[in-house]
Amino acid sequence: MAEIDTASFVPSLAIDCVVFGFHENELKVLLLKLTGVDVWALPGGFVDKNKDLEKAAIDTLEVRTGLTDIFLRQFHTFGSIARNDPNHPKFLIDKGLISEDLFDWFNQRFVTIGFYALVEYSQVKEPVPGPISEACEWCSVNDLPPLMLDHQEIVEKAHKALKRELSYQPIGLNLLPNQFTMSELQALYETILETQLDRRNFRRKILSYGILKDTKKFRTGVAHKAPALYEFDVSAYKKASQAGLNMGW
Amino acid sequence: MAEIDTASFVPSLAIDCVVFGFHENELKVLLLKLTGVDVWALPGGFVDKNKDLEKAAIDTLEVRTGLTDIFLRQFHTFGSIARNDPNHPKFLIDKGLISEDLFDWFNQRFVTIGFYALVEYSQVKEPVPGPISEACEWCSVNDLPPLMLDHQEIVEKAHKALKRELSYQPIGLNLLPNQFTMSELQALYETILETQLDRRNFRRKILSYGILKDTKKFRTGVAHKAPALYEFDVSAYKKASQAGLNMGW
Repeated sequence: MAEIDTASFVPSLAIDCVVFGFHENELKVLLLKLTGVDVWALPGGFVDKNKDLEKAAIDTLEVRTGLTDIFLRQFHTFGSIARNDPNHPKFLIDKGLISEDLFDWFNQRFVTIGFYALVEYSQVKEPVPGPISEACEWCSVNDLPPLMLDHQEIVEKAHKALKRELSYQPIGLNLLPNQFTMSELQALYETILETQLDRRNFRRKILSYGILKDTKKFRTGVAHKAPALYEFDVSAYKKASQAGLNMGW
Repeated sequence: MAEIDTASFVPSLAIDCVVFGFHENELKVLLLKLTGVDVWALPGGFVDKNKDLEKAAIDTLEVRTGLTDIFLRQFHTFGSIARNDPNHPKFLIDKGLISEDLFDWFNQRFVTIGFYALVEYSQVKEPVPGPISEACEWCSVNDLPPLMLDHQEIVEKAHKALKRELSYQPIGLNLLPNQFTMSELQALYETILETQLDRRNFRRKILSYGILKDTKKFRTGVAHKAPALYEFDVSAYKKASQAGLNMGW
């Protein structure tokens, strides 16, 4: 049973992190399986009184994934009163996950700040479960297990925010190897967008942003014509991250 | 002195609304002047225990502006521990704005959820001040008076979010008359973006989104060649609001 020092947390506030993992053209999300039941939850938790909100999210991800330099973005705060459901703390107590004296704390109305992150998931060697969970695993975004509270809605909203992000932010640094082919970059976009893209349009559009450098090298050891290798122009990429793509009117 | 029934509010939580007003090619923001001092604040406040977060923002705006159907968007949640400054409640008590027994409530760490709204400001007949303010006025975003706490940062972040919004959302419905010229629409964009745009590029780009209908009418009574009048194709506009502009990859 989890020991939770509720006095150290800000009342009413929680964070939830939707960690998207990209690997071999699959988009997954990191979930915790509650101990002894088939109910899953997002990594997250309460906010320490002495910790900035962003820092609370960064620390949660570090504990779960071991990664420290993650692309992390606040995307929405969930504040419906319907989030407060007394059956939830009752369930946690019934299943022996928390002690009865935590009912009042867990039965507060919580507003949760949603963050999403994007990682190359093979970098996460061994995801670490939390105090009331027994497993921490990558699950396909298209085949989610039963999630507690409104966590499914939070995942869906995060995925929507990530898709939208592609239209005004460069993406790919830290997700692809240093050098990559145009097809590999396109596959990243297709995986996030869950759709097939036209090869020539994609190439034209992504090159127009000026964030790619042609390395003049080619991927060797492939069956067909050796494809060109690109890398990100890190300075242009970071500039575009600040200023936004498509921002010219 | 303001009577505040703190028991009815969620602890640690606040909302702040950045209401942008557009009128005659000027972008302003609605601010409250605290009673008896030259310190200004955003409309906002605490969150009623029985009210959804979005509803709290909608209600705040209705009370201040009389408007009920406002374009309102959550843009960021501010959660730095540095927001908690004991000098703030001390100042409010010293100036007689709140009673001494409210020190503890006001000295909590508050996380505030920022919303922005965009209104045609001539529609707001008489902005209404709140319990600790004596005036509610439109101030130029480029010449803000002294703002309390981190409210200036909140305004700046909201303006940045609004600018970004232009790159993936249509804007203008409820802000322009039903029929408008291309120059009037361009002026709205220029005002928000605080920059001059190329007339032909703007026209080409905005028409490419398929959200405008040519009314085949012309603005009469002007000195030069009568300009064409457009209106929004409301169904296409709403579809684009959902799906986003520039989303095609």
